[in-house]
Amino acid sequence: MNKDDRKTIMNLMRESDSFFKEFGLLDDKAFEENIIPKKYKELTMVAISIVEKCEECIQYHLEESNKAGALKEEIIEAIKMGMMAGGSVTYPYVRHAFRCLKEYFQL
Amino acid sequence: MNKDDRKTIMNLMRESDSFFKEFGLLDDKAFEENIIPKKYKELTMVAISIVEKCEECIQYHLEESNKAGALKEEIIEAIKMGMMAGGSVTYPYVRHAFRCLKEYFQL
Amino acid sequence: MNKDDRKTIMNLMRESDSFFKEFGLLDDKAFEENIIPKKYKELTMVAISIVEKCEECIQYHLEESNKAGALKEEIIEAIKMGMMAGGSVTYPYVRHAFRCLKEYFQL
Amino acid sequence: MNKDDRKTIMNLMRESDSFFKEFGLLDDKAFEENIIPKKYKELTMVAISIVEKCEECIQYHLEESNKAGALKEEIIEAIKMGMMAGGSVTYPYVRHAFRCLKEYFQL
Amino acid sequence: MNKDDRKTIMNLMRESDSFFKEFGLLDDKAFEENIIPKKYKELTMVAISIVEKCEECIQYHLEESNKAGALKEEIIEAIKMGMMAGGSVTYPYVRHAFRCLKEYFQL
Amino acid sequence: MNKDDRKTIMNLMRESDSFFKEFGLLDDKAFEENIIPKKYKELTMVAISIVEKCEECIQYHLEESNKAGALKEEIIEAIKMGMMAGGSVTYPYVRHAFRCLKEYFQL
Repeated sequence: MNKDDRKTIMNLMRESDSFFKEFGLLDDKAFEENIIPKKYKELTMVAISIVEKCEECIQYHLEESNKAGALKEEIIEAIKMGMMAGGSVTYPYVRHAFRCLKEYFQL
Repeated sequence: MNKDDRKTIMNLMRESDSFFKEFGLLDDKAFEENIIPKKYKELTMVAISIVEKCEECIQYHLEESNKAGALKEEIIEAIKMGMMAGGSVTYPYVRHAFRCLKEYFQL
Repeated sequence: MNKDDRKTIMNLMRESDSFFKEFGLLDDKAFEENIIPKKYKELTMVAISIVEKCEECIQYHLEESNKAGALKEEIIEAIKMGMMAGGSVTYPYVRHAFRCLKEYFQL
Repeated sequence: MNKDDRKTIMNLMRESDSFFKEFGLLDDKAFEENIIPKKYKELTMVAISIVEKCEECIQYHLEESNKAGALKEEIIEAIKMGMMAGGSVTYPYVRHAFRCLKEYFQL
Repeated sequence: MNKDDRKTIMNLMRESDSFFKEFGLLDDKAFEENIIPKKYKELTMVAISIVEKCEECIQYHLEESNKAGALKEEIIEAIKMGMMAGGSVTYPYVRHAFRCLKEYFQL
Repeated sequence: MNKDDRKTIMNLMRESDSFFKEFGLLDDKAFEENIIPKKYKELTMVAISIVEKCEECIQYHLEESNKAGALKEEIIEAIKMGMMAGGSVTYPYVRHAFRCLKEYFQL
C-alpha cells in the first residue's frame, strides 16, 4: 500500500468508528518520547517488527527511528536483536529490512 | 493468487493426497451453521485472521461473513476485536481489511 | 495467578501508569455489547485464546462467555473453531479448555 | 496435566463432539509411518514444538520419537533445528526439552 | 525478491556486520547432514515454514529438500505435517507450497 | 525452573553439542553493549518477551535490564511497548511482568 492509499484508509477507519482513533492515540502514547527516548522506542519496534515478521512495520519503524535520530549503525543493531530473538525464520524479513536500509540510506 | 488459480491449486491438492480433502471437510464442519450461527463463525474468523496476520484469510472471511448475512458494521466490530486482541503489529492487516471493505461495499 | 493476586496486580498496573487504565477501557470498548452481542464477542475470544495458546485467557473468556449467556454447547463450538484454525499445536490448550469446562459446568 | 487426567479429558472431548474424534484421526493420518518414516515425523514435531513454544508438546513428541526409534542424538539434532529456526525466545523451551531428555534417558 | 537481489542483499548484510555471517554459519551447522540426514532436515523446514507462514521460506526449503534428494511425495508429506500442526490459518501458505511444487516439478 | 536447575541444564546443553555454546555466544554478541547501550537492548528484550508471551524471558530480561541500569520507570515503559504492540492477548504476561517488578523492587 503506498502512502497516499494508507492515508485514505486510515481516514476511513477513523470515520467508521472512534475505536480506531482512540487505538491510534494510545499507540502514540506508548511510543512517544518519555523516560525511554523516542529513538530507542522506534528501534525496539524495528526489532519487534522483525520478530513479528511484518514487512510494512519494518519499513515504517526503520524510517521513524531515523527521523528520531537513529543512525544506520543503530538500526542494524536493532535488526540483529530481532533476528537473534526470532531465529532463522526471520531471514526474509531481515533481507527486507536491509533492502529498505539500502534504499533509504542510498548504500 | 486469483480465484481461478486458487481453484486449480485446491484441485491439485485434493488429487495429490486425500488428506487435503479430509482437512477441507473437517474445516467445513467446524465452521458450518450450528448452535453458533454461520455469520458469527465467519466474523470470528475475520478477527482470527487479523490476529494471525493473514491477508488472504482476511479477504476470504470478510466476503464469507457478508454472504452469511453480516453487515458492514458487524464486520467492523470483528476487525476491532482482532486489532484489540492482536495489538499494533496488526496495523497493516487492519488497513488491508478496510481496503477490502472499501472495495467490497463500494465505500 | 489467583483472582485476588490478579486484582492486586491490576491495581498496581493502573496506579503505575495511566496507560494501563486507558488500555483496559479501550479493551472494554472493543468487547462490549454492540451490533455483535457480548456473548458472541466472548466466544470469539475463547477461539482466539486457543489459537494464541494462552491458558489464563481461555479460562477467563470461557467464564465471561457463560456470564454473557453462552451455553456449554456454544463454548464447545468456539473451542472447535480455535482448534481448527490453530491446528494440532493447540492440543494442550484445547485440553485445558475442556478441563475448565469440566470444573465450571461440573461435568 | 498428568497422563491419567489427559486421558479423562480426551474422552470427554470425544464424547462431547465427534469433531474432536475426527480431528484426532486426521492428526494420526498426517503423522503415521509413510514415505517419510514415523521417526522423522516425530522429530519434525519436536522441532515444531520448540518453535511454537509448547511445553506439553515437547515432552510428548520427544517420547514418541524415541518410541519410533529415535536416538538421544537425533532428538538433540531436532532441538537444534527448532532453536535455530525459532531464535533465542525459544531458550526456556529448549531448556525444558533438555530437562525432559535428562529424565527420559536418565542422563 | 529475485535470487540476484537476494544475493546482493546477503552480501550487504555480511559486509555490514560480522554477526550476519556468523548467524549464517550457525544456521548452516544446524541444518547440515548429520545423524539426521540433510533431506529430512530440509523437509522439517518445509513443515516449519508452513506453520510459521513464511512464503519465501517455503519456496527455498522446498527446492533445497529436492536438491537433498526428497521426492515430490515426501515434500507433500512435509506440507501435510505443517498444515496439521498449524491449522486452517495456514491454507494460503499450503496453496503457495503447491503452486511452487507445480512449477518446480512441472505438474 | 529455578536458577540452579537452569545452570545444570545449560551445562548439559553445552556438553551435548557445541551448537548450544555457539548459539549462546552469538546471542551474547547480539545483546552486548554497543552503539545501542546494553540497558536499551535489555529493555527491548522485555518488550519482545511480552509480545512473544514468554514468562521466563520476562523475568530474566527484567532483572538484566535493571542490572544494566534501567530504572523501574523505564521497565514499565518497555512493558507498555510490548503490550501495545502485542495487544490484549498479552494481558497475563503483562501481569506476570508486574508481579516480577513488585517482587524485584519490593513495591
